[in-house]
Amino acid sequence: MVTLKDVEQAEKALEHVVRPTPLILSYTLSDFMGREVYLKPESLQRTGSFKIRGAYNRMLKIPEAERRHGVLAASAGNHAQGVALAAKVLGIPATVVMPEDTAIVKVERARGYGAEVVLVKGDFEAARARTEELRAARGATVIPTYDDPDVIAGQGTVGLEIIRDGGGDIDEVLVPAGGGGLLAGVAAAVKGLSPRTRVVGVQAEGCASIVASLAKGERVRVPKARTFAEGIAVPMVGEHPLEIIRALVDEVMTVSDEAIARAMVTLMEKSKLVLEAAGAAGAAALLEGEKPPGRGKVVVILSGGNVDINLLQRVIERGLVAEGRYVRITVRMPDRPGNLALILAVVAAHGGNVVDVEHDRGGWRVSLGEVKASLLVELRESGAGPRILDAVRASGFDASLLGAPEYARARVKGLTPGSEEDGEDAEGALS
Amino acid sequence: MVTLKDVEQAEKALEHVVRPTPLILSYTLSDFMGREVYLKPESLQRTGSFKIRGAYNRMLKIPEAERRHGVLAASAGNHAQGVALAAKVLGIPATVVMPEDTAIVKVERARGYGAEVVLVKGDFEAARARTEELRAARGATVIPTYDDPDVIAGQGTVGLEIIRDGGGDIDEVLVPAGGGGLLAGVAAAVKGLSPRTRVVGVQAEGCASIVASLAKGERVRVPKARTFAEGIAVPMVGEHPLEIIRALVDEVMTVSDEAIARAMVTLMEKSKLVLEAAGAAGAAALLEGEKPPGRGKVVVILSGGNVDINLLQRVIERGLVAEGRYVRITVRMPDRPGNLALILAVVAAHGGNVVDVEHDRGGWRVSLGEVKASLLVELRESGAGPRILDAVRASGFDASLLGAPEYARARVKGLTPGSEEDGEDAEGALS
Repeated sequence: MVTLKDVEQAEKALEHVVRPTPLILSYTLSDFMGREVYLKPESLQRTGSFKIRGAYNRMLKIPEAERRHGVLAASAGNHAQGVALAAKVLGIPATVVMPEDTAIVKVERARGYGAEVVLVKGDFEAARARTEELRAARGATVIPTYDDPDVIAGQGTVGLEIIRDGGGDIDEVLVPAGGGGLLAGVAAAVKGLSPRTRVVGVQAEGCASIVASLAKGERVRVPKARTFAEGIAVPMVGEHPLEIIRALVDEVMTVSDEAIARAMVTLMEKSKLVLEAAGAAGAAALLEGEKPPGRGKVVVILSGGNVDINLLQRVIERGLVAEGRYVRITVRMPDRPGNLALILAVVAAHGGNVVDVEHDRGGWRVSLGEVKASLLVELRESGAGPRILDAVRASGFDASLLGAPEYARARVKGLTPGSEEDGEDAEGALS
Repeated sequence: MVTLKDVEQAEKALEHVVRPTPLILSYTLSDFMGREVYLKPESLQRTGSFKIRGAYNRMLKIPEAERRHGVLAASAGNHAQGVALAAKVLGIPATVVMPEDTAIVKVERARGYGAEVVLVKGDFEAARARTEELRAARGATVIPTYDDPDVIAGQGTVGLEIIRDGGGDIDEVLVPAGGGGLLAGVAAAVKGLSPRTRVVGVQAEGCASIVASLAKGERVRVPKARTFAEGIAVPMVGEHPLEIIRALVDEVMTVSDEAIARAMVTLMEKSKLVLEAAGAAGAAALLEGEKPPGRGKVVVILSGGNVDINLLQRVIERGLVAEGRYVRITVRMPDRPGNLALILAVVAAHGGNVVDVEHDRGGWRVSLGEVKASLLVELRESGAGPRILDAVRASGFDASLLGAPEYARARVKGLTPGSEEDGEDAEGALS
């Protein structure tokens, strides 16, 4: 078991390497939730996530004589960057193994921190197999992602900072959880300093191994991840984390991808913070978890901010749709000059910004002499959609509105369930 | 002239009201620029911008007997929120006057901080006129946006925090500037504590009254704002700020809207921070100013994060286009079954994500027996566009690529130059 003392030692070791992230009282979210809400943005940590804490703490334990053989990791995600930077700081050669179809931006990110990147044909299992070969051949040390006491102790320093900066009277801490390293470490620290503080883990409902494991009383491997929250899409919780979670964590709950996407948009709009999906899971639980968390002063750990900007754009679109700020209006009208111009004028007069027009004169679903126009309209306020629809109808046209949630299903794609990197942060035989 | 002592007094007064924002060493931007880069995110300040500092400091100077008559402001932007919150904290009734076509979200934001919102027909001049009427009728106090020593002293507390947290050896501070309140206040504080530190103002090139005024040796009103950086789209610098700027500021430079948009994307991707356009002007100067700033340890003030999420989405799109990560590929091919499927397969094999397909069989620019397909493709890395084009051509098709900057001109709209709220933060006769 990792103890408070282990975490305190880790914190000393990490001084001057990690950045103590601020604990931010969010007045907006506090007003909204009717309780004091604090944010702990590990997205502002070096490498954009908390992973550097555990990786560095683990690396310090490598005996001096073995360091020159280097360190290894199989990851294209936050762990890869954490390992690469920790190794750079310590002057240890680092090799990160990734599948060859990994986006070049992730490869470049690890290289940017000075790591050698080895690309292998196949999936993450293949990457892990190669990592094992390299370990055997070089005598290098594999840095585990979460199933390791030193890694857990390092992640736990997030919890120390929370209790210290929060003045000791925190009622609840919400922690995104996949493999369980962060959750276990935070629980060890928080419960050690403040036993009355509730520690709650939050998983993506598409990949909730901890929830399943706690229910069954033993480690359970869940099917291929069906969530876009890659960072917590881990099919099986670690053994060390699960032991600690069972002993110390008050509750582990799940959130949907939809809730995560909306939380990402809310955090951008209200808190001006960019989060990756996994990083926003705790916020999603607070804002709209099916089984909402408790009362009192709550801290939400925002565990990381490394989101692909293309994905972020789709998340925003989805969020706008969900809020009714992005709608499609379809109008059938007689094929006469000026009708489309008239409709566009009506939409504009009601503050709608037309993003796209499809004007269909020959389609097989349109009668002869009739035209169908489909307008994609961006609104600056929720609820303007129905008003615009009424106005278009009042002008004498046969119109209909596709808003949330029909519109969401019909048009917004891209937040494809099922990570390509099933278990990107998961560990296999190497942990 | 506002002095260091005025700013120090303001800081004491602001304690427990404003949040001292962190000074964040950005390792990524430091590597990129080859110099130590620190960020001062006032986007994380209460109300999402620095404006609360000046508004609160000014409000404290209202004699007790006059407070019950309330305070007034004509603004739909950050000043409105700063005034509303400061008044709420002090228990003073606040009225904010806005044009009636102001987006409801801005109205709700000010109401959310407890202000009464008065909507008037017409533009900001009309709002200012109404504010003056209300002042006369009620005996209320108008809180100026920037042309006031107490407001300037309040904004200057940003500079105090920078020098204190930066360890005193800051070489340069970059400050977004419109009316000049923040720039003047920061200059007073920084030059007072560290005369050798260069203070540089950054304006949007579409609305650069300070640059024009310094050149002419007197206050100059520039034409209607042609920039999307509303927060610094002020047609005429304040009298008090200009006096201080002339005495203390080392340089005032300009940046383009394009550079601001790219800086916004960079700050989202690298620093996980959401900025409004004005808030990113300093970063734009650092990253790609035409006349780049100097050497050594630099602090970039990120003055605010209140950006409309619809606009943010377009900024991201524009940023992706500029980086070559969003392209349009046009293909002409014989009208035979299977061709489109083949092309889509080629695009996918090279990592392109097809966002939209236009398939034109009957268009007047296509020969009979020929089909034109136009694909909007999202790429996960810059530079993949030409590779995909080559692959499509190698498959025997006549293809062309519309990338940045042609594509930017052709497709991305929405960052419309010319703020609707010309001089939203500007002051007229009331200052």
